[in-house]
Amino acid sequence: MVCAGTGVIGGGWVAYFLAKGYRVVAWDPGAAAEERLAHLVRAAWPALTELGLAEGVSGPDVVFEPDLAAACAQADFVQESAPEDLDLKRRLLADIDAVTPTDVVISSSTSGYGMSEMQVECAHPERTVVGHPFNPPYLIPLVEVVGGDLTDPEVVSWTSEFFRLAGKSVITMDKEVPGFIANRLQEAMWREALHMVAAGEATVEQIDLSITDGPGLRWPIHGPMLTFHLAGGQGGMAHMLDHFGPSLLSPWTRLLAAELTPELRDAVVEGCEREAGGRSIDELVAERDRGVIAVLRALGRA
Amino acid sequence: MVCAGTGVIGGGWVAYFLAKGYRVVAWDPGAAAEERLAHLVRAAWPALTELGLAEGVSGPDVVFEPDLAAACAQADFVQESAPEDLDLKRRLLADIDAVTPTDVVISSSTSGYGMSEMQVECAHPERTVVGHPFNPPYLIPLVEVVGGDLTDPEVVSWTSEFFRLAGKSVITMDKEVPGFIANRLQEAMWREALHMVAAGEATVEQIDLSITDGPGLRWPIHGPMLTFHLAGGQGGMAHMLDHFGPSLLSPWTRLLAAELTPELRDAVVEGCEREAGGRSIDELVAERDRGVIAVLRALGRA
Repeated sequence: MVCAGTGVIGGGWVAYFLAKGYRVVAWDPGAAAEERLAHLVRAAWPALTELGLAEGVSGPDVVFEPDLAAACAQADFVQESAPEDLDLKRRLLADIDAVTPTDVVISSSTSGYGMSEMQVECAHPERTVVGHPFNPPYLIPLVEVVGGDLTDPEVVSWTSEFFRLAGKSVITMDKEVPGFIANRLQEAMWREALHMVAAGEATVEQIDLSITDGPGLRWPIHGPMLTFHLAGGQGGMAHMLDHFGPSLLSPWTRLLAAELTPELRDAVVEGCEREAGGRSIDELVAERDRGVIAVLRALGRA
Repeated sequence: MVCAGTGVIGGGWVAYFLAKGYRVVAWDPGAAAEERLAHLVRAAWPALTELGLAEGVSGPDVVFEPDLAAACAQADFVQESAPEDLDLKRRLLADIDAVTPTDVVISSSTSGYGMSEMQVECAHPERTVVGHPFNPPYLIPLVEVVGGDLTDPEVVSWTSEFFRLAGKSVITMDKEVPGFIANRLQEAMWREALHMVAAGEATVEQIDLSITDGPGLRWPIHGPMLTFHLAGGQGGMAHMLDHFGPSLLSPWTRLLAAELTPELRDAVVEGCEREAGGRSIDELVAERDRGVIAVLRALGRA
């Protein structure tokens, strides 16, 4: 496979795929890109070794190819991780498209653009798709997969399965949403944090401590929805929305509240119940508690 | 000490303080409150036992007192955790104030009201203060401490020290902000999540998975600010803001972006540098990686 663009994200992909036993050809037009990539892979390798390398893998065996056409000629998959610049990505995807066998999927690490915007200059846009990882791609499981207007739905399915087989946790999205899902959520929090600093309401350190020592300890175990499902006590999310719905109108963030229509209320409650999958509130509480303790212990904080 | 109000939060406080060896008198006017509290404390006890009980503590030894005046007559500290209803909290704080020795601090678990709004009916408002925990209070370290207009600053300091001695991680706030800090941040994320469900952009399950398998794995280790400090590569937060500043204007959440003035930019960069405390980006990356691996392992996911 080819990793095109080897900054923090692309270099993380290179390290991940090498550790998983894939043959990786790296390409990056930047000055000193090869050395920078070697530094990134070296930094990631102890973590990957600790998690367990694939059979037959010993050291990181990066092949760096400065010529894009030479890199892509034999590719069976391409992951593009160029800087976030729409024109640059459009041109690069078209360049990759021109030199890669037409049946090979080209996936982009873009953290915000939709593939519909990026695939417009490709001759074969149907095989272009977004596969958005999280930093560092060699540790964080999540990959968000979503196609553009011209993407073949089969390519979206294939790419989701490809990342799953490579050991990632995949969310396949039906709709192009700027920022996808996790970035929308973490950006909402970050914007609020910036507002708080700007208004002198909290310092950077207080903001970070409020998360690492507060709700951040729950989020590797239960996401924001299931977290609030538990905040409702035995009544779960239904109690939470019915009881605290009005307080959603309080000025608790600068983000206007979504109108809590009966449809939205039911969708959220039913989603939590589906996700709980029969686990009672007591069982979820016990699961969360075990998880938080494990996290605190693992971090040497208990 | 007295825990007044023993729902999910108040009951969690009771369990925590009992495990830490404090003598706790619980009061709650609700029907079957004593039984519900016993259930809550029993559910919390295995976690607290695993974390280690204070010397001399064996089982949970709750003293339930149905009469508020009798409960508070001998109190050396009162933690109020009544339902989130401003009128109710105003009246209850005034009632507690009337029956508690005047040199004893009365702290409120309120998750959103400012003490200025709540202390208005107290004869001795100077000893009332917010001590806002996170659910579950017996596991999540964070307590946000902030006074109201009439609170004695000495009471704010004393309460911060009290919670610190009791083993909590304390943020002492200078300013009353609705929702304090962590709730502002998690509410911003939750509102965005509700908008996404309402717009059919993501399901409840996708939202939760995007956090538990994505950025949520980093947040017990580094908060949102330090997380973005690392996303900037070797250039840190300064590079992040200078390079991605314009993309803050992208429609990545429904929350309007804070205007990135030079002052805000510098405050955030300097805050990250203070927080990093001399740790280089490479050191922070290694710390994050060790942490994420420990978290994944602890949760049986690696």
